[in-house]
Amino acid sequence: MRRIVFVLVAVVALAGVVAHMVPASGQADKEAAPIFVTKIPPGYRDWRLISVAREEGSLNDIRAILGNDIAIKAYREGKLPFPDGTIIARIAWSCDASEENNKILGQPQSFVAGSPKNGVQFMVKDSRKYASTGGWGFAQFDDGKPADEAVLKTCFPCHQAIKARDLVFTRYAP
Amino acid sequence: MRRIVFVLVAVVALAGVVAHMVPASGQADKEAAPIFVTKIPPGYRDWRLISVAREEGSLNDIRAILGNDIAIKAYREGKLPFPDGTIIARIAWSCDASEENNKILGQPQSFVAGSPKNGVQFMVKDSRKYASTGGWGFAQFDDGKPADEAVLKTCFPCHQAIKARDLVFTRYAP
Repeated sequence: MRRIVFVLVAVVALAGVVAHMVPASGQADKEAAPIFVTKIPPGYRDWRLISVAREEGSLNDIRAILGNDIAIKAYREGKLPFPDGTIIARIAWSCDASEENNKILGQPQSFVAGSPKNGVQFMVKDSRKYASTGGWGFAQFDDGKPADEAVLKTCFPCHQAIKARDLVFTRYAP
Repeated sequence: MRRIVFVLVAVVALAGVVAHMVPASGQADKEAAPIFVTKIPPGYRDWRLISVAREEGSLNDIRAILGNDIAIKAYREGKLPFPDGTIIARIAWSCDASEENNKILGQPQSFVAGSPKNGVQFMVKDSRKYASTGGWGFAQFDDGKPADEAVLKTCFPCHQAIKARDLVFTRYAP
């Protein structure tokens, strides 16, 4: 009986190691197809603010970048690369001229967040799981639904250019 | 002895009432000079996000509006007027074109938060203490120092125009 239990434990442990070493595709980690984040990290709207930004062009939005506790701690300590468990969220809205504000302020100057736009995006750090994309899992959710793989495949090639900051565009705004 | 204690309690209680009824200036509450917030609410940079905005004109900044727990709860429940204890913070930064991002994105489109700008502002709800300014205490801190009273006196006249939302410009961004 004791021997059977030992053999079972060994098999389960080995299966775990194999699962880590060989992705479902059967390729080695380095050449693995990118894996994307498929579930919205819960509670992200309550996370603390990293920074804000405005994108013109086809994106044409105003955005906030939020981070979970691990992200905020790493940012504030200037810790790079970001540790596993870091999650960075990007929310965006239409950048609407506020007639209401402008009327009170006496001139056209005020733009506010309007409707949600360009989905909600996430970067999830797991240096092992997402090894093929620099340790980051990328995600975009449009109305709660994950974006197509074709969309997500465009994330890494761009983010890869910010190697000096571990693939993260956004700097912390004091 | 019992009588002395009773008289003392009565005097203290009366003093409390008087202190509430008559501000230091000796004026009645309704005509009182505005009272401003003189201390930075601790921990505001950790508060949750209400919304973001962009102000052009002489302000020329990009900004985030954060709220303490009471503020966020009231916003999400659509509760008006805001309850006492609500604090809303406005942080702003220069709105800087990001050459780094634009180079990667292939066109000029990206603006990011640069240096802190236009101070940090607060609205603190205390319907009794700040009765003369619609229940809101206003504050601005430039490099940690409270702004002159002349600056703070410009807050209420403008905010007064947003009566329908309890003097608060910013709407919650979902």
